[in-house]
Amino acid sequence: MLIVQKFGGTSVANIERIRNVARRAVREAKKGNSVIVVVSAMAGETDKLIALAHQVNPNPSEREMDILLSSGERVTCALTAMTIQALGMKAVALTGRQLGVYTDSVHTRAHIEYISGERAKQALKDGHIVVVAGFQGIAKDTGEVTTLGRGGSDLSAVAIAYAMNADLCEIYTDVDGVYTADPNIVKEAHKIDKITYEEMLELASLGAKVLQTRSVEVAAKYNVPLMVRSSFNYKKGTLIVKEDRDMEKVLVSAVAHDKNQARITIKDVYNRPGIAAKIFKAIADRNIVVDMISQNIVKGDERADISFTLPRSETKAAIKILDGLKGEIGFSRLDVNENVGKVSIVGVGMRTHSGVAAKMFDVLSKNRINIMMINTSEISVSCIIELKYVEKAVRILHKAFML
Amino acid sequence: MLIVQKFGGTSVANIERIRNVARRAVREAKKGNSVIVVVSAMAGETDKLIALAHQVNPNPSEREMDILLSSGERVTCALTAMTIQALGMKAVALTGRQLGVYTDSVHTRAHIEYISGERAKQALKDGHIVVVAGFQGIAKDTGEVTTLGRGGSDLSAVAIAYAMNADLCEIYTDVDGVYTADPNIVKEAHKIDKITYEEMLELASLGAKVLQTRSVEVAAKYNVPLMVRSSFNYKKGTLIVKEDRDMEKVLVSAVAHDKNQARITIKDVYNRPGIAAKIFKAIADRNIVVDMISQNIVKGDERADISFTLPRSETKAAIKILDGLKGEIGFSRLDVNENVGKVSIVGVGMRTHSGVAAKMFDVLSKNRINIMMINTSEISVSCIIELKYVEKAVRILHKAFML
Repeated sequence: MLIVQKFGGTSVANIERIRNVARRAVREAKKGNSVIVVVSAMAGETDKLIALAHQVNPNPSEREMDILLSSGERVTCALTAMTIQALGMKAVALTGRQLGVYTDSVHTRAHIEYISGERAKQALKDGHIVVVAGFQGIAKDTGEVTTLGRGGSDLSAVAIAYAMNADLCEIYTDVDGVYTADPNIVKEAHKIDKITYEEMLELASLGAKVLQTRSVEVAAKYNVPLMVRSSFNYKKGTLIVKEDRDMEKVLVSAVAHDKNQARITIKDVYNRPGIAAKIFKAIADRNIVVDMISQNIVKGDERADISFTLPRSETKAAIKILDGLKGEIGFSRLDVNENVGKVSIVGVGMRTHSGVAAKMFDVLSKNRINIMMINTSEISVSCIIELKYVEKAVRILHKAFML
Repeated sequence: MLIVQKFGGTSVANIERIRNVARRAVREAKKGNSVIVVVSAMAGETDKLIALAHQVNPNPSEREMDILLSSGERVTCALTAMTIQALGMKAVALTGRQLGVYTDSVHTRAHIEYISGERAKQALKDGHIVVVAGFQGIAKDTGEVTTLGRGGSDLSAVAIAYAMNADLCEIYTDVDGVYTADPNIVKEAHKIDKITYEEMLELASLGAKVLQTRSVEVAAKYNVPLMVRSSFNYKKGTLIVKEDRDMEKVLVSAVAHDKNQARITIKDVYNRPGIAAKIFKAIADRNIVVDMISQNIVKGDERADISFTLPRSETKAAIKILDGLKGEIGFSRLDVNENVGKVSIVGVGMRTHSGVAAKMFDVLSKNRINIMMINTSEISVSCIIELKYVEKAVRILHKAFML
């Protein structure tokens, strides 16, 4: 079996943790598996380099930024290979270039175009553990150093697993896997053994921070089995795979929540075609990600209200943008509520079972929790509620759906 | 004019110093010159990485060591280019690979085979300041990352200056240039404006730490004019060039000294052919560099004494080696003197003027300084004397030769 093991910054934060990573890789290799280890920079290193860059230049060039940032993963991949060698196994460190990670030429957020992996294949054949510097590649057209953006090491791992035809891509992190709810809130919450790519994507977008969305999307696209597990113990983690029949039986897989939300209502905007587009384009242009949108428009009315939610940290920036648009969109006032949160239920079983949303609303209302906004997808239902009820809502929903 | 400016670790030790480096490069470019900046890793970074490597593996693989260590120069070259850009000049950072520094495949101490420099030429033509990561290259045959060994950034700079046909290679350091003697000892000591490659090599081997020997050798071989100067002020430094007529007029250019010497005398070794070779091969095998050797052998004698000097820090190791050879070389005892030092005079003028050595001995003896060993080359005379007289000897010789 060929296994790709990806370790993030906290898993390689110091020498002792790098030893732990090396031991894991060796353990897998000794079972007779081929192992490719993908590492991030040591925790804090990338941020330190970014801070240095901003000290010398408020607007550092992205090409040089990539040369700068790619150095962090080179350090960990070399150290990890040396550590494995110290444990008596053959190991080889490969940079993005040496592995053949070819990307487009978009610096600091390049997209992988293909991975040749020739050297890695040969090294595996020769009995080496291959240690790869994640997050980095080389532009196919220009030979320039590129990086894949935040969370790029997860993406490297998934793309390498696909290119090398690996049987499993393990993403090591500081939690045991994906939980039915936040165990800090729900003491009955338990680790999910198996979940679909779609559910994982939904959970990630609903506030679960276990995996980066882009890497799950790529894994889903190429059907790369992912396992999220802890680098601090040997418990089995959560396997993320394509939907199968068993999974459909489960109505709700997890309850997610997000306490960093705010809602802005724009009161009495002109009820004209294109007004909403104008508002949300202006907000998107400043890289603010709007989550839910609700428009309550009655045909013939001259004015309407538009509400949307966004990360609470962006509230001020959004207000500023809206104030700037006042002349064009003509609202009477902004109603800003920073005391809101989101609670969501996720499960592929919803596709084939009706009444799940109704049950959620019922449970919340019976507990006198008012629903301010609702959003649904094929496999999830989310409600915006008062911030102070979020934890309670998570607990009662977890219980109601008997997770 | 094309100028290569090389800045060592202390000159790029922090953001403020990197700004200073950037300002110097921009200043030169604004005069209408083309500028290539070669940088080392920030002071302490390389040592930190080496320490990490030894923590994970007492005997780290050299291939991985090169991936590890080459990261330091990548950081400084990216930061320096960004800083120059912040000053409003175009700049481009190039790694060893991107500049085309092709080496042999000997990891951690590779030799440069050639430098293509294509990208640098184009970038200079387009009005960029080119910032190069020193110390690193890429193996011509395998594409592996290589490094050039300690002091490798000086070597990078000289090789780049040669390959790019530069008019001058400036080596920036923390001293103003090469002095006629250590200014801490001789208050009349002054900076030398111009010195030959050979004198510089001689001074370097006699204890002056300004420049690394290997880079001066390469500069001499390819006739690259070198300028040693301070990165902390704008004073002209010391120019190191081929010998010319003017220089021959100067009898003695500088007085050098070395207080880290020891002398070991092996008493009563067998007087047989090959004994000395056996001794010094055993010592060289442990990487101990012996300096002076004196053998006092009378034909027909059964036993003889052999004395040699070495760095004081190596005394214990050398004694251990000699004790191990006792059976083969059969000495009666070792006489170890750790209270010795070396004082030397250097000057190309000695080639055409006789009596320089005699004058040196005369000056020392008039001051009641006993000479324990003597070594001469075409352009230098060195004496081993008691450690406590070294500083005095430097002063009186500086005065006697009226430097």
